[in-house]
Amino acid sequence: MLTTELQHKIDFKTKPLGALGHLEYLAHKIGMVQNTTSPQLTNPHLVVFAADHGIAKAGVSAYPQEVTCQMVMNFLGGGAAINVFCKQHDIEIKIVDAGVNFDFPEGLELIDHKVRKSSRNILEEPAMTSEEYQQALQNGSVIVAKIAKTGCNIIGFGEMGIGNTSASSLMMSQLFDLPIVSCIGRGTGLNDDQFLNKINILSAAIEKYPDSRTPDEIAQTFGGLEMVQMVGAMEEAFHQNMLIMVDGFIATVAVATAWRKNPDILNNCIFCHVSDENAHLQLLELLGQKALLNLNLRLGEGTGCALAYPIIQSAVNFLNEMSSFEDAHVSNKE
Amino acid sequence: MLTTELQHKIDFKTKPLGALGHLEYLAHKIGMVQNTTSPQLTNPHLVVFAADHGIAKAGVSAYPQEVTCQMVMNFLGGGAAINVFCKQHDIEIKIVDAGVNFDFPEGLELIDHKVRKSSRNILEEPAMTSEEYQQALQNGSVIVAKIAKTGCNIIGFGEMGIGNTSASSLMMSQLFDLPIVSCIGRGTGLNDDQFLNKINILSAAIEKYPDSRTPDEIAQTFGGLEMVQMVGAMEEAFHQNMLIMVDGFIATVAVATAWRKNPDILNNCIFCHVSDENAHLQLLELLGQKALLNLNLRLGEGTGCALAYPIIQSAVNFLNEMSSFEDAHVSNKE
Repeated sequence: MLTTELQHKIDFKTKPLGALGHLEYLAHKIGMVQNTTSPQLTNPHLVVFAADHGIAKAGVSAYPQEVTCQMVMNFLGGGAAINVFCKQHDIEIKIVDAGVNFDFPEGLELIDHKVRKSSRNILEEPAMTSEEYQQALQNGSVIVAKIAKTGCNIIGFGEMGIGNTSASSLMMSQLFDLPIVSCIGRGTGLNDDQFLNKINILSAAIEKYPDSRTPDEIAQTFGGLEMVQMVGAMEEAFHQNMLIMVDGFIATVAVATAWRKNPDILNNCIFCHVSDENAHLQLLELLGQKALLNLNLRLGEGTGCALAYPIIQSAVNFLNEMSSFEDAHVSNKE
Repeated sequence: MLTTELQHKIDFKTKPLGALGHLEYLAHKIGMVQNTTSPQLTNPHLVVFAADHGIAKAGVSAYPQEVTCQMVMNFLGGGAAINVFCKQHDIEIKIVDAGVNFDFPEGLELIDHKVRKSSRNILEEPAMTSEEYQQALQNGSVIVAKIAKTGCNIIGFGEMGIGNTSASSLMMSQLFDLPIVSCIGRGTGLNDDQFLNKINILSAAIEKYPDSRTPDEIAQTFGGLEMVQMVGAMEEAFHQNMLIMVDGFIATVAVATAWRKNPDILNNCIFCHVSDENAHLQLLELLGQKALLNLNLRLGEGTGCALAYPIIQSAVNFLNEMSSFEDAHVSNKE
């Protein structure tokens, strides 16, 4: 049995039993996904999906909507945090326009998967039509299928979209049948008045759609185009048997959506960090997951994935490279 | 003022204020140590000190004493966890015989700083004479002074010594005037009976030396030769204005010893992880420190330092490489 062989290989490395803690759990998990006691990480990628949110105009964010497209240009210019961390670890980065409210010029290194300019304002109508929702799912899937052909077996996902913690809180509330207030945080940094305003707006949004219940209905009604593309991308990554690096609150809501459709996706997921955004820890607990890092990050973009990547690599490396007690002639426990 | 300039540089990077959490704290700290808003990490080193403990014969560890010298051979052969992680991150590793109970053959890549074969059994006499203690401190200092000449400005320390969680618990208890039971953990994995035995033995040791009170007296009475060399090494690293990466419980006890002599050493220390060993979290809190990683490690060897190194590098990289709002034409908070 592979699970026993992996555990044996881990346990007979030259260290006290269990002394590498969470790295041992990771090594075992990665071996199980790759169906081998000698797993490898190959050609790591990080895909950042960007889109705007109709609800952003209601003042749920501390930043103006144009920051989404400005940050896309910053990603393309290599100046954002995610660029710096991906460069550090040789992770190939792809930037996707999933629905930014801006006409980008031609000739950029930007994947044009724009479904529409911004999701619809959920205070007036569902965020997407059924067609737009299906298109967004498929667009996400297509990107990952292409990346899989390059030999990539580990992929992380990031997002940029002013307003997307609001969409995520709404989805979390609906996916787990929780009161909306318990799912709301301060996003990019709201003050008390702004936070209260966010609670009021999201409460109104919830009341407007008493019926949405399946994960697809929830995502279509409340989601962002970048988030739905991420759901499609994660589902394809699972289909391709890749390891899926999960970033913060928004990415975890995307996983939770896919998980409601197929719980097996969690087998392939590595939860990279627990963010400072209020509801993220609770969400991880609902999924029964413990995150690798806790650095009080609340940036998104996939930064938690890129920062955690070397530790995931360390888990693979100890499994492949450390001596066993027998190889190294070290005495085991008395 | 440098502190203001650093904070300004951090705050005007293209990210919400504070969104990089602990990395921002690190970037600021490293800038302050290096006296610049553009710090660099150069030629990182990790020094593993190994020594045996007289008290090991009393059965305080789950492993036999010969594991210390066997693990030294494993370090030299490149097969231990610390080798794997240092190789991954291009950290130069040095192995020091600080007092292993074994005659190593000539011609090994082992720094021979053996003060004596094993510390003395503290159940009978202090762990070191005054001369042995001074020699150990100086030996640690000499290694770091040499490494500093290579241009290294960041250094981590690891240890190997069957029995050294016992020595560390005793030192912690004395340094902070705490009951010994609150400072004891299961080390490399004691069962309930063995754990009770460890408590009894260490309680007897404490009672034997009612008078030792200065940090030097405490370390001389209860310490291990690898731990005292680490104290000397850390003091020299501080003197050389290096960044000091602090590993787990044992390394933190070494820092605490140096800190009792000069509290400023904490300015240069990066606490890399909180270990699974019982008292480590409490010790970090006593020093007012939060660790970077919490991966349930309890291995020592400096593994927490090597695993945290890429994250420390990420802190430096975001400070040097990310665009500011102005550079990237991104709108700041409204």
